[in-house]
Amino acid sequence: MSLLIKNGVIVTAMDEYQGDILVDEGKIIAIGNNLDSKADEVIDAKGMYVLPGGVDQHVHFSFEFNGSKVRGFETSNAAAVGGTTTVIEFVNQIKGKGLIDTIDEYRKENAEGIAMVDYSFHGIITDPSTGVYDEIAKLPEAGYPTVKLFMAYKGMFFHCDDDVIAKSMQKAKDAGVTIMVHAENADLIDVLQKECVEQGNVEPYYHAVSRPPMVETEATERAINIARLMDAPLYVVHVSTKGAVDAIKRAQDEGLPVYGETCTHYLTLDKENLAKSNFQGAKYVCSPALREQDDIDYLWTSIKNGWLNAISSDHCGFNWAEQKHMGKDDFRNIPNGAPGLENRLGVLWTAGVETGKITRSQLVDLFATKPAKINGLGDRKGHLGIGYDADIVIYNPKVKSTISNETSLQGVDYNSYEGFEQIGRPEKVFLRGQLVVDEGKYIGEKGQGEFVPGKPYGLCYDGIKK
Amino acid sequence: MSLLIKNGVIVTAMDEYQGDILVDEGKIIAIGNNLDSKADEVIDAKGMYVLPGGVDQHVHFSFEFNGSKVRGFETSNAAAVGGTTTVIEFVNQIKGKGLIDTIDEYRKENAEGIAMVDYSFHGIITDPSTGVYDEIAKLPEAGYPTVKLFMAYKGMFFHCDDDVIAKSMQKAKDAGVTIMVHAENADLIDVLQKECVEQGNVEPYYHAVSRPPMVETEATERAINIARLMDAPLYVVHVSTKGAVDAIKRAQDEGLPVYGETCTHYLTLDKENLAKSNFQGAKYVCSPALREQDDIDYLWTSIKNGWLNAISSDHCGFNWAEQKHMGKDDFRNIPNGAPGLENRLGVLWTAGVETGKITRSQLVDLFATKPAKINGLGDRKGHLGIGYDADIVIYNPKVKSTISNETSLQGVDYNSYEGFEQIGRPEKVFLRGQLVVDEGKYIGEKGQGEFVPGKPYGLCYDGIKK
Amino acid sequence: MSLLIKNGVIVTAMDEYQGDILVDEGKIIAIGNNLDSKADEVIDAKGMYVLPGGVDQHVHFSFEFNGSKVRGFETSNAAAVGGTTTVIEFVNQIKGKGLIDTIDEYRKENAEGIAMVDYSFHGIITDPSTGVYDEIAKLPEAGYPTVKLFMAYKGMFFHCDDDVIAKSMQKAKDAGVTIMVHAENADLIDVLQKECVEQGNVEPYYHAVSRPPMVETEATERAINIARLMDAPLYVVHVSTKGAVDAIKRAQDEGLPVYGETCTHYLTLDKENLAKSNFQGAKYVCSPALREQDDIDYLWTSIKNGWLNAISSDHCGFNWAEQKHMGKDDFRNIPNGAPGLENRLGVLWTAGVETGKITRSQLVDLFATKPAKINGLGDRKGHLGIGYDADIVIYNPKVKSTISNETSLQGVDYNSYEGFEQIGRPEKVFLRGQLVVDEGKYIGEKGQGEFVPGKPYGLCYDGIKK
Amino acid sequence: MSLLIKNGVIVTAMDEYQGDILVDEGKIIAIGNNLDSKADEVIDAKGMYVLPGGVDQHVHFSFEFNGSKVRGFETSNAAAVGGTTTVIEFVNQIKGKGLIDTIDEYRKENAEGIAMVDYSFHGIITDPSTGVYDEIAKLPEAGYPTVKLFMAYKGMFFHCDDDVIAKSMQKAKDAGVTIMVHAENADLIDVLQKECVEQGNVEPYYHAVSRPPMVETEATERAINIARLMDAPLYVVHVSTKGAVDAIKRAQDEGLPVYGETCTHYLTLDKENLAKSNFQGAKYVCSPALREQDDIDYLWTSIKNGWLNAISSDHCGFNWAEQKHMGKDDFRNIPNGAPGLENRLGVLWTAGVETGKITRSQLVDLFATKPAKINGLGDRKGHLGIGYDADIVIYNPKVKSTISNETSLQGVDYNSYEGFEQIGRPEKVFLRGQLVVDEGKYIGEKGQGEFVPGKPYGLCYDGIKK
Repeated sequence: MSLLIKNGVIVTAMDEYQGDILVDEGKIIAIGNNLDSKADEVIDAKGMYVLPGGVDQHVHFSFEFNGSKVRGFETSNAAAVGGTTTVIEFVNQIKGKGLIDTIDEYRKENAEGIAMVDYSFHGIITDPSTGVYDEIAKLPEAGYPTVKLFMAYKGMFFHCDDDVIAKSMQKAKDAGVTIMVHAENADLIDVLQKECVEQGNVEPYYHAVSRPPMVETEATERAINIARLMDAPLYVVHVSTKGAVDAIKRAQDEGLPVYGETCTHYLTLDKENLAKSNFQGAKYVCSPALREQDDIDYLWTSIKNGWLNAISSDHCGFNWAEQKHMGKDDFRNIPNGAPGLENRLGVLWTAGVETGKITRSQLVDLFATKPAKINGLGDRKGHLGIGYDADIVIYNPKVKSTISNETSLQGVDYNSYEGFEQIGRPEKVFLRGQLVVDEGKYIGEKGQGEFVPGKPYGLCYDGIKK
Repeated sequence: MSLLIKNGVIVTAMDEYQGDILVDEGKIIAIGNNLDSKADEVIDAKGMYVLPGGVDQHVHFSFEFNGSKVRGFETSNAAAVGGTTTVIEFVNQIKGKGLIDTIDEYRKENAEGIAMVDYSFHGIITDPSTGVYDEIAKLPEAGYPTVKLFMAYKGMFFHCDDDVIAKSMQKAKDAGVTIMVHAENADLIDVLQKECVEQGNVEPYYHAVSRPPMVETEATERAINIARLMDAPLYVVHVSTKGAVDAIKRAQDEGLPVYGETCTHYLTLDKENLAKSNFQGAKYVCSPALREQDDIDYLWTSIKNGWLNAISSDHCGFNWAEQKHMGKDDFRNIPNGAPGLENRLGVLWTAGVETGKITRSQLVDLFATKPAKINGLGDRKGHLGIGYDADIVIYNPKVKSTISNETSLQGVDYNSYEGFEQIGRPEKVFLRGQLVVDEGKYIGEKGQGEFVPGKPYGLCYDGIKK
Repeated sequence: MSLLIKNGVIVTAMDEYQGDILVDEGKIIAIGNNLDSKADEVIDAKGMYVLPGGVDQHVHFSFEFNGSKVRGFETSNAAAVGGTTTVIEFVNQIKGKGLIDTIDEYRKENAEGIAMVDYSFHGIITDPSTGVYDEIAKLPEAGYPTVKLFMAYKGMFFHCDDDVIAKSMQKAKDAGVTIMVHAENADLIDVLQKECVEQGNVEPYYHAVSRPPMVETEATERAINIARLMDAPLYVVHVSTKGAVDAIKRAQDEGLPVYGETCTHYLTLDKENLAKSNFQGAKYVCSPALREQDDIDYLWTSIKNGWLNAISSDHCGFNWAEQKHMGKDDFRNIPNGAPGLENRLGVLWTAGVETGKITRSQLVDLFATKPAKINGLGDRKGHLGIGYDADIVIYNPKVKSTISNETSLQGVDYNSYEGFEQIGRPEKVFLRGQLVVDEGKYIGEKGQGEFVPGKPYGLCYDGIKK
Repeated sequence: MSLLIKNGVIVTAMDEYQGDILVDEGKIIAIGNNLDSKADEVIDAKGMYVLPGGVDQHVHFSFEFNGSKVRGFETSNAAAVGGTTTVIEFVNQIKGKGLIDTIDEYRKENAEGIAMVDYSFHGIITDPSTGVYDEIAKLPEAGYPTVKLFMAYKGMFFHCDDDVIAKSMQKAKDAGVTIMVHAENADLIDVLQKECVEQGNVEPYYHAVSRPPMVETEATERAINIARLMDAPLYVVHVSTKGAVDAIKRAQDEGLPVYGETCTHYLTLDKENLAKSNFQGAKYVCSPALREQDDIDYLWTSIKNGWLNAISSDHCGFNWAEQKHMGKDDFRNIPNGAPGLENRLGVLWTAGVETGKITRSQLVDLFATKPAKINGLGDRKGHLGIGYDADIVIYNPKVKSTISNETSLQGVDYNSYEGFEQIGRPEKVFLRGQLVVDEGKYIGEKGQGEFVPGKPYGLCYDGIKK
């Protein structure tokens, strides 16, 4: 079945222009002016922006934290209505089990037949004893060419010391695997948390107090130093501080393959949210913690100037009524994470494009194009180019709405952006040419999403820095 | 007349992919796979790279230096065979005459009916007494939105002191005019030149000795400081030193609209060329002077990392037999400048792409896309995009040749790259859809080139830094 | 005649300690505890600080600006009561006359038999045509090893272009002469001044508006670049901006012999003083202009951290009633300069030491020790060391007073620090062992001051950076 | 008993001058010219330099490493003949015992009645479980105001994680205690060591290969980040890399109380020593490892520019025949450390002063004055000032000798500087006025050394950065 999207303003990471897009068999086969086509279906996008479907490279489905699990791929229609057509999901290695086996099983049980957008995976190393270092060389072939390590969370099963990072990088550099890190100094947080609690400060706000910017900056600098020593690529997830950005930028200026991502909430929500009364602050407990205005401003500068490479959601939807309440008497027991999968595009468009902070092209680059490239999906996803998957968002810039959890598909009992006045919305969304969102409503079906294997770093990564 | 270029590898500043390009009435109207077209002409580009026609933003035709004039637009077919389809030419304001009048007249007399590629102009201020500061506001409307000022050349009629730069910027910032500078400290060069001559050092090599990197670095830093003070855009032409690049980079990191260009010869020819015997060194006398290896290496790093925004030829073809010989007994009388219009693409492809220093996309960006944007031509030139002028180069990567002045169209009696082993060549070149080069030979006709008015800075400049 | 100063707290640039100082024939001959001496005179300094007499390396006596002259050495008792026992005076080369002849004559006519403190001289080049570059080599022998050049003041007879600076440095580096610059970009000031006046802004405040920090920063960076090129020592006078300090600091970190001085007023008076009504603002018209708080704060940081090498007065006492009023209708005609010779120590002690911003040792270093070293007087002046001239200040930290022009010896009709609440005062001051100030009153006699020839840079300069 | 040292050139950290020093009851009571004294003893130091006795702030006596112990205070006469009159010794906390008790006992058993120079102590935390954090506040009163923590040596009992550093700093900042760190990343070394051994690389040279500069740089940056977070003073021992120096310098430029020391061997011995055949390389196994020339050169630049604050010996004299041989088959078992107590002054004078790299004043500053200040001994030790302990070295610059272990007092079976051609030697050394070295020979007696309690940071530390 063929499809023609006519008269829209096509936005790529490089430019924007009036044009038509012709789709056949789920792929973009032509772009032009006045394409005189006999397409099976013709859609007039006049007055609309035509964007590539988003790639959200930082999503936690079915994630367990302190024994409490978040919702899974059955809520991935939230991605679709939010203009995201590919999610990349983090999977924790199960103790005693190989990393590839863990992901393969997870994929079969939790994603296949359920997912409503396309998906790919990152592994998370938790148990080096399984021969996981040797497994790294096999990850690209399995389609999982990215591995995350947690520098944070002292005492938790997924926490890694520097030796694990170094050994992983030793193996990763030749295999074409990119090591990702959650960069926070676990020891320093531990000291500061204990100090807070000893002083009787147990409310959610002290989550932020005990995770000041320096704990992130320090760990980011350390991770980069290890990458420098090991001569391996590094991707720092959820960067939220000026110090961490500067460390990444210095490394890039030296020519190192060091990259960083920030998240929607670090650009738009500040630390004071954690001070909300009646334990409402717990909704904003995520790590790194929300920051103050100077860091927020610097993050905008950073994405405008190309110093960071992606904006993700770090979606992790613990519910408030039960799961967040586990930390009612001690912020250390509040599960870390917040939902955001559904609102990434609308919030960034409103807070970034409409305010003139970034251009539409820059948004596309950070929302779709570079996240696809950095994860080895850049030859199929994240771009409106010839031969690419027809993952297309028709963005209507005129609709105004107020974000409310009542209409959310995320399956969580709150929304971090509740009350946010959004400008524009994904009017129609196509997943490989199939209409899955219309008039802003999800109309696709469960299991429509497919697994997209990542290619190794270097194969389709080349040229990300232009 | 329509044209279909099939099966080539299309290279843009952002990506490269197999595809077909459909051209009608001189414009690109569609790009796709297997475009099933009834085009009047179909060209099979299998095995070839399809690039946008180059934009050479720094060309001197009919330039006079010490009373000696270089060849004009009658040699612009040299651009075409070199894959450059648009040149931007510098025009010196005539003393006592307005800048727009000067350019208008120059254009009628020297370009119209003669040019063999498309062209645009930069003004050069030489005489503030004509009310030229007030004229700046009118430049964009006249299609000349860029002005160059010479910080170098103490005592020459086009030399400017800092007050002229500052006042020009004062006017330029609101008018959307970009101020360009030739950044070398005229006073310091004067002191060093006199020192050389006093010591009896009059050979061409002392041109380089009396223009060390610091004289460029200093002037670049100063120009940027003035731009910072005046809050105006600045474009530094022919950057050749690490110090100048670093100054530009620091300014960009601060968020200032400061840009820099380097030239083919600064990337590929070193200072020792000026030491060639029998006055051969005079062929390499240009300003800034050729540099040593550490600066050359840093320039490659700079273009790879996106710190500079264009690679131009700074084509200025004084002949050696007579014009260069004016300085036989005193290097200060050698006219500054060297030809290079014809060899920009071939040399950069060979020295940059084939060695792996830059990607094809980066070459396209620096050779065509960004130079078009920075000069207000970015909505028509420099990119293979829908609606763009069909200025297209079909680059054959397999032909090998040796650069020789015997076959050159530049109209000069030497070639700076004589003997250079070039990989690939522009096999066919289209100017607005018309074939002007075939099998590497010029087959177009005089006067085929058209004037392309530049748009003011900001209108089509947006998004140059992604 | 011998003298023993007992029981004071001796403060040097390095340390402070309880001790006695024994003086004979105008020199310090011993320092110790309980010196059991038969000195002719014994002074008990219990409860007092004993400091080296100050060296004010930036003083303008008999200076002419726009035809208006300030008071001369007949007011140098103001230095003595202010704790300064050596002044270094700037002498403008007379057009057509050699620099050494100019200074020799000036010295005979204006200083000898008049001065009430010791004195030395800097030359100021105004006329290169006299063979002044060749004279530079002879300066050290004449005892004048320092030369200042004015980058500011476009159109005035003492303004220098970059070539004069470069040539002077060429000669200076081998001669052991230090080049000093007044670093402000004359062209930029000219543009901004004209802009102010064209807009009808002629009040004193626009002196500061037309000399923003950038005009100083730019010129400082340029002077350093020239010094870097010429490989010569540089001393930047009256540094007042963060940008200029940073440029100096970067040069020092590279190992270059680049130094900077700031002045009392840049540390203690801000730009808003120029906005005072009834033309009172004219009293604060000096160049560089007074700055805002961020620059002021950074200057304190700079002297605390050792990034600047001296604090001078830049004393230049135009009277307000007549001389300053020449610029009543156009701030450009206000003579630049303000008095300050008398108040340097008291103001810095109060604003620096008493607030804890700097230590007493740091004050001594910047007020006396380093200025002596940098001007080739470091083996006789500026330190309480064995063999040094017995220039000694007994500072009483307990006296509080209010600065008032009524009691000033400066011979000007206003005081920049009028109303300033001063803590402590120079109770007694000795000039080569002779008591010239007692109970804060001048009791010496005219002509008591002697010429102190400067030694060339390097001879006694070694070790200034510890 | 009084003593007069006449006619020498007295060198302080600030200056040098001809003068006499009068000593009574072990203290310097007067300095002057031609002191007409009836001293009990008069020594003519004509032609000699008179220096303060050295303070070696980094000495390991009786240190145990892998069960093997070095010699103790019975070899401290080696310090005396080397011009060092005060050593500061590191004492490991005994597991289960308080830090103060440990040091008190060590002092009684190992130092009192044995030491031949004065001494002070640093504690080393090894067992937080003893309530050692609470003990920190009591350290200054006990006279031990400095504590070292080992970031290196994974798995050893004295290794500390970041939480121990952070908690120690939390307590230290208010107590006036300075935290010192041995900054090397233990995890990274562990990974690299295992990699070496797995590849069969077990020779001493691989000690250096497995401890590349980055492992030190990383840990130094981390320690500084922790100090920045905790707002506490930090002193980094034995700095050996450019990266670590730069981190320290950046912190100082920010105004942080961060200091660094380097050691004689990092300035004079390079990595290739570890490649010496027949297991001779083991003699040079110390941590950090010896470096290559670029780091060595940068260290000289650093001390010249004042970026580092002391040069110590890190004396730790394992013998080669037995102790070093424990690592015959695996470099990881070679005890880390090398002797150097005796040769610090002679080697630095020869390699630093005689080559013009540093001045005599700078040597005194780094060898004696600043190490005294930084350890709270600055009011008694390290300076030739009134009231100071008469610890005096008369350095004869004319004697030339060759360093040989045959004449060494260090009690080790090798000398790292064997064969080094030394210029000058400590001719006479006085400890609190008593002659303990004459004609370069030790003539004092066992137990002559006394304990000197350190004062808390801040009390006598003020003003170290001038």
